[in-house]
This record gives sequence, C-alpha cells and structure tokens, in this order.
Amino acid sequence: MRNVCLLGATGSIGMQTLDIIRNHADRFNLVCFSFGQNICLAIEIIQEFKPAFVSTGKAEDTIKLQEMFPNILFSSGNESLIQVATFETEDGKSPLVINALMGGVGLRPTLTAIEAGRDVALANKETLVMAGEIMTKKAREYDVKLMPIDSEHSALWQCMNGEDSKKINKMIITASGGSFRDLTRDELKNVTKEQALNHPNWSMGSKITIDSATMMNKGLEVIEAHYLFNLPYDDIETILHRQSIVHSMVEFVDTSVIAHLGTADMKIPIAYAMNYPKRMPIENTSQLDLVKLGSLDFKVMDFERFPCLAMAYEAGRKGDTYPLVLNAANEEAVSLFLADKISFLEIENIISVALDTHIAIKDATIDEILEINDAVRAEIRARYIKDDE
Amino acid sequence: MRNVCLLGATGSIGMQTLDIIRNHADRFNLVCFSFGQNICLAIEIIQEFKPAFVSTGKAEDTIKLQEMFPNILFSSGNESLIQVATFETEDGKSPLVINALMGGVGLRPTLTAIEAGRDVALANKETLVMAGEIMTKKAREYDVKLMPIDSEHSALWQCMNGEDSKKINKMIITASGGSFRDLTRDELKNVTKEQALNHPNWSMGSKITIDSATMMNKGLEVIEAHYLFNLPYDDIETILHRQSIVHSMVEFVDTSVIAHLGTADMKIPIAYAMNYPKRMPIENTSQLDLVKLGSLDFKVMDFERFPCLAMAYEAGRKGDTYPLVLNAANEEAVSLFLADKISFLEIENIISVALDTHIAIKDATIDEILEINDAVRAEIRARYIKDDE
Repeated sequence: MRNVCLLGATGSIGMQTLDIIRNHADRFNLVCFSFGQNICLAIEIIQEFKPAFVSTGKAEDTIKLQEMFPNILFSSGNESLIQVATFETEDGKSPLVINALMGGVGLRPTLTAIEAGRDVALANKETLVMAGEIMTKKAREYDVKLMPIDSEHSALWQCMNGEDSKKINKMIITASGGSFRDLTRDELKNVTKEQALNHPNWSMGSKITIDSATMMNKGLEVIEAHYLFNLPYDDIETILHRQSIVHSMVEFVDTSVIAHLGTADMKIPIAYAMNYPKRMPIENTSQLDLVKLGSLDFKVMDFERFPCLAMAYEAGRKGDTYPLVLNAANEEAVSLFLADKISFLEIENIISVALDTHIAIKDATIDEILEINDAVRAEIRARYIKDDE
Repeated sequence: MRNVCLLGATGSIGMQTLDIIRNHADRFNLVCFSFGQNICLAIEIIQEFKPAFVSTGKAEDTIKLQEMFPNILFSSGNESLIQVATFETEDGKSPLVINALMGGVGLRPTLTAIEAGRDVALANKETLVMAGEIMTKKAREYDVKLMPIDSEHSALWQCMNGEDSKKINKMIITASGGSFRDLTRDELKNVTKEQALNHPNWSMGSKITIDSATMMNKGLEVIEAHYLFNLPYDDIETILHRQSIVHSMVEFVDTSVIAHLGTADMKIPIAYAMNYPKRMPIENTSQLDLVKLGSLDFKVMDFERFPCLAMAYEAGRKGDTYPLVLNAANEEAVSLFLADKISFLEIENIISVALDTHIAIKDATIDEILEINDAVRAEIRARYIKDDE
C-alpha cells in the first residue's frame, strides 16, 4: 500500500489521479490533499477518501470544513501546501507526492518534498522549467525520483525503461502542431481566441491549448526533458506528428528507435508514475487501434513558423534564469491573449522582448526565481493593462 | 571480452556478424566457426580472425584447409557443428553461440549449446519453429538465454527490455505484405518467380522472400514469438505495415504501446543480441528519418488473402508436431516453386494437404522431429519431381 499526498486534487490531473486511487484501493491510499477554489468537489473527496489532512486555498474554507469534519486537520495558504508535500504518515513509510498544482506556486512544495525524501510525480511543469537546475540537483542529493506526469515525458521515460541513459543518440518529442498547424504565418494575424482554443487531439485547459498553438508547449517540454533526462539540447529533437499517437521516441546509439504510442488518456502517464516501475490496468480507457487510424504522419519542425519553440531552445541553451523568464513572459502573454488584450502574434513578441531585456542571474535561489517571475509578469501586465481596469 | 562461436559464418547473417566482431575487436573474439560451401570466403575469415577451430561442410575442404593452416583444428560433418556449438575456450568462460545456420540442420547445434550452458543468439528459425517446446524447456532448465536475431523478434525483445512479461496485453508483429501485397487472389494465379523475388523493403535470400510474399514468413514468426516470449497465440497479432519501419510492438496492460522502429539493417538485431543487455554503436548504418518517410501506414491483416498465415496460426495452436509439418511442407513447396515445378498458389495447397494428412506426435524427440521433417519433404518431392530428374 502506497500513501499518496496529492497537491491540486480538484484539477483535471488531480481528479484523474483520484480515479486511479479509487480503482486501485488495494494499492493506494490518499492521506492528504490540497485544493484551490472548488470546495464542493473538495467535500466530496473528503467524504470518499477520508484523508488525515487537507490544504485549502482560502482561509474561510478551512473554517467551514473544520466544522463539517472535526476529525480531519485543515489549513490554508502556501505553508499548508508544504504540509501536504512533507506529510508524515503513521506507518513511517515515505509517501508518494503528486504535484498537480498549476504555476510557480508548485515550486516550494516540490523542493520541500524532495528535501523530505519523497518521490515526486510531477504534473507541475514550472518545477522544472523555472527551477530545473535546483530541483534535479536536490533530487540527486536526496536520492529521490522525479517522475513526469504528461504524455511526452512519460513516453520518453517509458522508452528509457531498462535502457542505459548513456546509450542515447537523441530524444524525439512529437508535436501535434496545435489548432493553427495548417495556417501560414500570415493567416495567424487575425486568429481569434475561440479558434485557438479548439485543439484537434487533446482536450486540455485554455493556457496549455494556447501554448500548443504557439508551440511554446513543446518548448517548455524540451526544457523539462533537458532536466529530467540530463540531455543536451542538441540531443532533443522535435517533430511534427499531427495525430499525437506517437507520444515521443528515443533513438539509441545502435540507431534503434523505441517509441511510445497510445491514446490521448492522461491516466496512462499518471498511473505509470504512481505505480512505477510496474504497470497496472487502467479502467475506462480504450486500446490504440492503428488499423482504424490508418496512418501516422511526420513532418519536419518549422522554427520560423513557430518562433516560440526557437526561443525556448535558445532560452534553454542560455540556461540560468532565461527559461524562467521565457515561462513567466509566456504565462502573462497567454493571459493577456485570453483576456482579449493582445493578438495571437503579440504573444511571441512579448516573450521575445522579455528575453532580450533580461539580465541573467547565476545560481538563483527559489526566492530569487519567484521574485524574477513576479517582476517579469508585473512589468508585462503594467504595459498592457490600464490602471483603471 | 566475449568469445564467439559462429555457426554459418559465410551466409548473410554470418558475414554481418563478422563485421560487428571486426568493428568491436575490444569486445568480441571469434574462437570458432562453421561454413558450408564457400571455402574461399572461409580462408579469408580464417586469415583475418585466426580461430582455434573450423567446421567445414565437406570432408575434402577439411583436408585442404588443414594443410594450409596446420595450427588450426578442422573437422567436417554434423558432428563438427556440435563441436562449434559446445566449444570450450581456454579462459573457461562460456562463449556466445550464434546460430546462423539455415534449416533443420540448426536444431542439434542449438540443443547441444543449451545443454553446454551456452547463451544462443538465434538466426536459425527452425530451432523454434520445429522444436520450440524442447528448446525453450531446455533453455529454462539450463538457465541460458535464447536471443532472437531477426528484426521482428529483436524488436519485440527490445520493447520488453525492463518490462514485466506478465503485464503484456498483446504483441503486434508487422508485415510488409511482400512482393504481391497489392495484388488480389485472382491476380496471384499467374505470378512468376521473378516477380515474387522482388521484395519492396528488404534484400533477403530467395526462400524468405517467397515466404514474405505468401505471408508464411509472418506465420513462422508468430510461432517463434509464441515460444520466445511464452505468449498464447491469441495475444500475438499481425498487422500490415508496408514501410517495414515499425519492426514490431508490444501493448501493455495500461494500453501503452512500445514500438521498435528502425532502418532495414540486420546488424541492429545481431549487435543487440551479441551485446545484450547493452547497446553499442553500429558502423556504416543510417539513422531513421521519419520526416523523409513522411508517413507510416497500417492495415488490418487479411487472412483470406494470406491463407498461409491462417494455417500457421492453426498449426501453432494445435501444437505438437504441426508447426514442424507446416515448416517442412513450406520449405519443400517453396523449393518447388523456385525450381519452376509449381505455381505460386500451389505453395499453400501443398502445405494445406500436408497439415490435413498429418497425425501428430506428442513430445516428439529431436530424432523424431528430424524424421518427420524428412518424411514430409520426401513425400512432397516424390509427388512433384519425376524420378528421372
């Protein structure tokens, strides 16, 4: 039985994680979780899983829930996320921490979980994009596993199962191309938010669907892969593959290519990380049917068509605080686009300006990282949002 | 340094094996080998690799070579193949036996190698098709590895690396469809030997190219996979994939599909078996270029179009001596076709009659297996070749 501490229980990854725990109650036990806003869902989770501790997004929810569930411990604020990440279970065994938080708020929980000797399953991209250097160094120091929860990195990790990481020629990350893959640069000038949100293969949140259309999503994945697999950027390739069936591939020194293929079901990478290194059956998922698909297409990545990806490689290669600035500027730019404040193509301009004007810091601490993140975002916001809004 | 005993050095697999030994002289050392007819090539191999023992196909070659190389031991006949398979090296370590013999003559060398505690890399299909039950039982008993040398089984084996064999949903073996894949059954009536020998993807020997056109090649591979991976026939699927780039796939219980992709270079599976579980670089091979390929196509296998495959599954499921009869009848039928004695479609009829009239033997010994093999072939030959020929 593995105890699970779940950060971000009411989000999409969180809910699918709970589904796996529910279907494998013989293997997993939810001991604590955090949620942000959705108290109704949180109440259902508490009633079903009876955790020992719950972190709430708002102080008033803590009071409400404490009245309803006097035998459970509640707390709110960033400190309560750390409590989830470092929760001590009664059996004394190290629980699995699943970080499904969104944004920079996920950094400290990951770091403290590592320092408490916990294996961490990471759906929180920011952990590696903003602080990959620190996190991977700490993970080595404390001998804990950082396990990816997303289809591409899980695919790479599964392709690496049993393989020697020194025998890699390159990793190949596939990209669907997103909502605008069939449009030219010129046709991108007038695209709308609604068009951008219509992703062909995956049903995801707004932010990541826009990132998929700009190809920044792939850029962030390249940076994550660099840190997760300790691979130089030159050995991480991206390729256009519109069906999103081949989730990613690894080419080895003997030119063998091992690929992971599958349906668009996030429960596969979640379950793989939760039960690693053993696979387990997944309920209510469908088998891949290659015959029905008929064919899989591959096209060369076009860095001129997708400058966000080029910027991500550049920021990654420069290292230091550049990837974090890339991410911060992108987050803010996508927010502005989703709020109808800027056009689709202005997203890349904002990121480009942020990177060009950034003066990097070496060996930044988590505090410094979060400060730079806030500063970059505030500066962009200030430029595009008027004071009276 | 691993000592290598190579059965069938002058064939295609043998020569490619020697190429790998040549390029990795720090890892491998050829201590003995066998050859059949090609004494010129054998002399070159002896001069280059300076083995301690050589098995020759003909007694007169033994005499010739003994005069030329008085410090090397020579011997001929089937017994000398056993000497290669069980050769004792001076360092006392168990050498690797590579069985690249063609046909039923490969059975005894594999068996004796296993009984001598040798790991065997198998390019000899007959070992598993004719005597899979005996060979896999013996391999377990003597705790030796039977390692496949061919693109499909090596692909499956590579996909299984690090995975738990109990967590398989199914294995999926790909088939190019061979030279006649775009023809209907009706159009097959008048095809010629020359047309059949024109394989679209792989350059192989005549026998296997015809097997590829009849799909018997895939049928034999299904039977081999059954024994190699101890998997029921219901869990071994075949799928049409005209590009032969995906060499095979494994679907696991979580619906993840791990696939092996690569170019058509037999040195990849040979090197993988030789250096297992570590991969090593391969000289003069090219990297897979999915972008250049553009797309990979998949079609459902058509068992009515390819009755040889249906017969192979049936023979495999029946077990006992049926797979061996399937193989014997096929070998003879293909010989007859290559000798212009029968038409392409008569190949499947001959196999069908042989299977229908066979009375199976339980737990057949190697002697009985070889006897049945000879009897089935002689009976077919007698029917189609006149005495005066």
